[in-house]
Amino acid sequence: MSDPESFRSCAIGLLTTEYFDNIDTFIEEAIDSGHDFVSTPIVHSRYKRVLKTKDNDSWKNSPVYDRDDLVVRKPNWSDAVVGTLSNWLELDSTDQNTRINSELALKQELAWACHLGLFAVMTPPLSDTTTSISNLARVINHNVGSMAVTQMWVRVLMDKNNQAWKKWNQFRSLAEHNPRIHVALELPKELPEDDLLLDTWIAEPIKSVIVPADIFISNNKGYPVLPKPHQTYLKKLMHRIQPQIIVTLPDVNIHPSAAPSSYQEYIRYLNRNLPEMNDVDRFASGYHDYLQAPLQPLMDNLDNSMYETFERDPIKYQQYEKAVYHALLDRVEHDSDYVSTIMVVGAGRGPLVNCCLRAAEKAERKVHLYALEKNPNAFVTLQNAKAEIWHDKVTLVFADMRKWKPETKCDILVSELLGSFGDNELSPECLDGAQKFLKEDGISIPASYTAYVTPLASSKLYNEVAAYKDVTHFETPYVVMFQQVCELAVSKPVWTFEHPNKTIEQDPENNLHNNRYSQTKFDMIPQDMIMHGIAGYFESVLYKDVMISIHPDTHSPGMFSWFPIFFPLRTPLQVAQGSTITLDFWRTTDAKKVWYEWSVTVESSNGNDSSISPIHNPSGRSYWVGL
Amino acid sequence: MSDPESFRSCAIGLLTTEYFDNIDTFIEEAIDSGHDFVSTPIVHSRYKRVLKTKDNDSWKNSPVYDRDDLVVRKPNWSDAVVGTLSNWLELDSTDQNTRINSELALKQELAWACHLGLFAVMTPPLSDTTTSISNLARVINHNVGSMAVTQMWVRVLMDKNNQAWKKWNQFRSLAEHNPRIHVALELPKELPEDDLLLDTWIAEPIKSVIVPADIFISNNKGYPVLPKPHQTYLKKLMHRIQPQIIVTLPDVNIHPSAAPSSYQEYIRYLNRNLPEMNDVDRFASGYHDYLQAPLQPLMDNLDNSMYETFERDPIKYQQYEKAVYHALLDRVEHDSDYVSTIMVVGAGRGPLVNCCLRAAEKAERKVHLYALEKNPNAFVTLQNAKAEIWHDKVTLVFADMRKWKPETKCDILVSELLGSFGDNELSPECLDGAQKFLKEDGISIPASYTAYVTPLASSKLYNEVAAYKDVTHFETPYVVMFQQVCELAVSKPVWTFEHPNKTIEQDPENNLHNNRYSQTKFDMIPQDMIMHGIAGYFESVLYKDVMISIHPDTHSPGMFSWFPIFFPLRTPLQVAQGSTITLDFWRTTDAKKVWYEWSVTVESSNGNDSSISPIHNPSGRSYWVGL
Repeated sequence: MSDPESFRSCAIGLLTTEYFDNIDTFIEEAIDSGHDFVSTPIVHSRYKRVLKTKDNDSWKNSPVYDRDDLVVRKPNWSDAVVGTLSNWLELDSTDQNTRINSELALKQELAWACHLGLFAVMTPPLSDTTTSISNLARVINHNVGSMAVTQMWVRVLMDKNNQAWKKWNQFRSLAEHNPRIHVALELPKELPEDDLLLDTWIAEPIKSVIVPADIFISNNKGYPVLPKPHQTYLKKLMHRIQPQIIVTLPDVNIHPSAAPSSYQEYIRYLNRNLPEMNDVDRFASGYHDYLQAPLQPLMDNLDNSMYETFERDPIKYQQYEKAVYHALLDRVEHDSDYVSTIMVVGAGRGPLVNCCLRAAEKAERKVHLYALEKNPNAFVTLQNAKAEIWHDKVTLVFADMRKWKPETKCDILVSELLGSFGDNELSPECLDGAQKFLKEDGISIPASYTAYVTPLASSKLYNEVAAYKDVTHFETPYVVMFQQVCELAVSKPVWTFEHPNKTIEQDPENNLHNNRYSQTKFDMIPQDMIMHGIAGYFESVLYKDVMISIHPDTHSPGMFSWFPIFFPLRTPLQVAQGSTITLDFWRTTDAKKVWYEWSVTVESSNGNDSSISPIHNPSGRSYWVGL
Repeated sequence: MSDPESFRSCAIGLLTTEYFDNIDTFIEEAIDSGHDFVSTPIVHSRYKRVLKTKDNDSWKNSPVYDRDDLVVRKPNWSDAVVGTLSNWLELDSTDQNTRINSELALKQELAWACHLGLFAVMTPPLSDTTTSISNLARVINHNVGSMAVTQMWVRVLMDKNNQAWKKWNQFRSLAEHNPRIHVALELPKELPEDDLLLDTWIAEPIKSVIVPADIFISNNKGYPVLPKPHQTYLKKLMHRIQPQIIVTLPDVNIHPSAAPSSYQEYIRYLNRNLPEMNDVDRFASGYHDYLQAPLQPLMDNLDNSMYETFERDPIKYQQYEKAVYHALLDRVEHDSDYVSTIMVVGAGRGPLVNCCLRAAEKAERKVHLYALEKNPNAFVTLQNAKAEIWHDKVTLVFADMRKWKPETKCDILVSELLGSFGDNELSPECLDGAQKFLKEDGISIPASYTAYVTPLASSKLYNEVAAYKDVTHFETPYVVMFQQVCELAVSKPVWTFEHPNKTIEQDPENNLHNNRYSQTKFDMIPQDMIMHGIAGYFESVLYKDVMISIHPDTHSPGMFSWFPIFFPLRTPLQVAQGSTITLDFWRTTDAKKVWYEWSVTVESSNGNDSSISPIHNPSGRSYWVGL
């Protein structure tokens, strides 16, 4: 992969509302003043005359432009042009003739834009809430089907009370989340103060952000700069979405020292000065919003490159080492000759063995280790390490921890079997088998882990799943590095597993004690939103106060071994302001497998159920983890 | 088809809550006292002990009954037994162990019921709104998958404030409208007074109605009878749904003259005395809730049996005759020698020709008729009629009315090209072609037609469409004789076509004037409901005040030529009390076809959008009518 920073750089365009006679001059000037592209009307406003065309006019049979009707007449520069669609079209006119002429003229305009190969076209801003947009949505949705190269952007002017989002939400719901329809988000002079309202847009399919000249203020040298809230938000958009940015020039000189290049220069300055990427960012670049099927480590063997990747985590093994260190200190007195037995179950290529050895050295306690591994390939690496480094300090065991019958019991049982949702790689089932190795008063590291969930909006993730066009993919959880997402609430715990589990007998005949069911409520959702699925995280107590966590509020800084997990919803749910979202989550098992089922209920503030999803993945029909 | 009345007769069962030691005796007594089946617990309440089973008890690995734990022990009578599932199960207990034991015990009970081959099993009544039913829904939904013969009924006690319906609605939404899950509806002592609330249940998948003894009152001879509202509603249920009826016997003697047989006798008496079926009922029996694809009369030729069926309508041709009669009276003075030219376009086998001839005779006006038909098979019948009956009074023309160039023009143009939605068999397009036959001041019969729509609930129709498991069938309208449906509001007009259309020129080059778009709002939906689709009707002015209509409020009595049309929704929408439902409907055309698109928005009473359907059938991808 190339420089992970480079993907954050944004192209900048210049928007005009003028109908230039010679658009080439405008484009040349825009590029000379440092812009990458322009946004201009395609068709002249004089073409508005066609709205009055009567039924018996031949234009209706085959609409055609005169040369003078066009602003963009030739395909030169076409990949540097975003066409703005005529703002005089009345797609939702109650007058049938006006409406039909508008449909014909829009179709004609889109056909022309596609013929020229324009990079994108952009609608006029979605009107306020009183006007219907149903027919506009239908006609755009119909026409994008035949747009191969040219992108369709719906322009939306952000507002403080979320009306713009509701209008856009209505548009895309009518168009059934058509992945060919994107948003051009125009920033207003006053940004909403509510962070959630700003973040809502992050989950939308934004391709472009419009930053008009009049939202700039002058700095003390008279140059245009953005107010602090706009800076912060625009940088966030750049970091998360990498949109095309579009600026305008002011009609009159409102920033004394401004040149035509000043606005784009300032934006580029912001773009160059995004916060530095941390280890997690760097590791994650290229994985953003990419759906990975969760691992099936019991059924499949991890390959070497995966071990390689996971072993590079700078934080996880540090925490394990700390946990083992404190466990040894608590368990064995200083200067004691007692040799603690530590068993590392699922030792892989040995990173936890090294942790334990370092911890013992630091704690000045004597230990003997067992390293248990079922993967024959990883076991070769363990043999190498024993021969070259560990020698007698470590006994190797090639076995499945659920089957092995040890001759001795251990003081500390160490494992790293956790998945993004804690128990989803079947740590509970594995440790049920391994806990018989542990002395009555022995310590399991980890001691417990808890799964967390929260409702999530993400147009991008929804469309990634929808692209498979089947129910199976909508009933499968994915491991994903979240990027264009918005959490609707702070996540909450669903269930916990503790080890050792004292309530079960050795080698239990059934797995029912590892079933879980939890109903989690999120009250008073603060604004209208859409929900595309559920985000899942885990938090684990390794030993006493030594934790690892991928829960956003307690995330172990710099730990990159786990991305969150995403449970999709087959149909996105509308969530009105003040609603309560209830998540029902099940962990279910039979003799051969483990799976999750989930459903969502949205109850409006007045107590009427507004929507209830079906139970996803009933009986594990689409997704399960093999035992 | 056999006697159309017979399908309305209902089987009657006797319900007990006792745990009989000898269930055979009870069943024999029930049958001796005239019942067709019984409903009884399957498992004894003493089996409740298993709820306390701990993780290390072997029952968890393989639950098994002692003989004494069972009420129904043998498969005798099994097809006359509806098993009531144990009412002590706690599927939604917050105690994990109790919940899991309940799941195991329920699964065991269902397996036993299926093993015996019981006719059906019935859950305990769904509890009040405060208790969660998510896990119950999940477990039932999971287990019905393996129930081949035995039906699953969810028992619901109807109430006055719709809470019971909401609970059921939640259950079946979680179970994704699983067609294997039915309702056993228990009538309460006091029925809701609101008819709509009663009718809501008609749209649900009811298999059984429970009529407990204590809702009966004594008549003046001391026999149990139902109060008037219960009589009316039960008869409606019998007429529309033909449920199994279940009665109970009172614990103490509350009806002085009652014998064990009295309750079922009374129900049978009601069942025998349903209102007589009218012509439409009789014609429609066997077609109830059966989905028919709408006709494509332009692309396909009707066959003889269809002509036969449609010509039998006693009302339609009476209305046409009346319309022609009045048109002739208005157009030609008494005693005039003027010979009016009438063209029947789409004459089929000639019924409208006969109407016109009868009208002329009755009006004492001279006429000459042209009968135009494109179907070569029907044309043979017309030739026979001309040779044998009509002779010189009728000129036959074998042609498509959109192509024919007549030598003379007519005074009256008569057609019967209407479909269930008015324009859906392309009457507008056909008459555009035919109106050039008409004199400047000529009359078209029909003069106009209007399409009507209303939101509809029908679990049955939804599941019929869902059974095809594709989007195409969810985006196709169907002609259906409605039976188990409930309209959510009174229907409203969407658009009208008038003939002749003076705004278009002869042989228009495009069909844009026949496009339509309409947004129809239904305010203040009076209670919580579910919406599965849209019902469509038409009303047509043949001439002045001579109408035909299939709109429920103005339905021409006895006319059976048209069933309503049903536009499905891909995902049922929850509609909260007080909501506004907006229907967007489009009639769209291109050079080769005509199609509809539709979408639905439900806005809650506080103005927040609660749900927006996608636009169905975009670009006519799933359904269209060929020109």
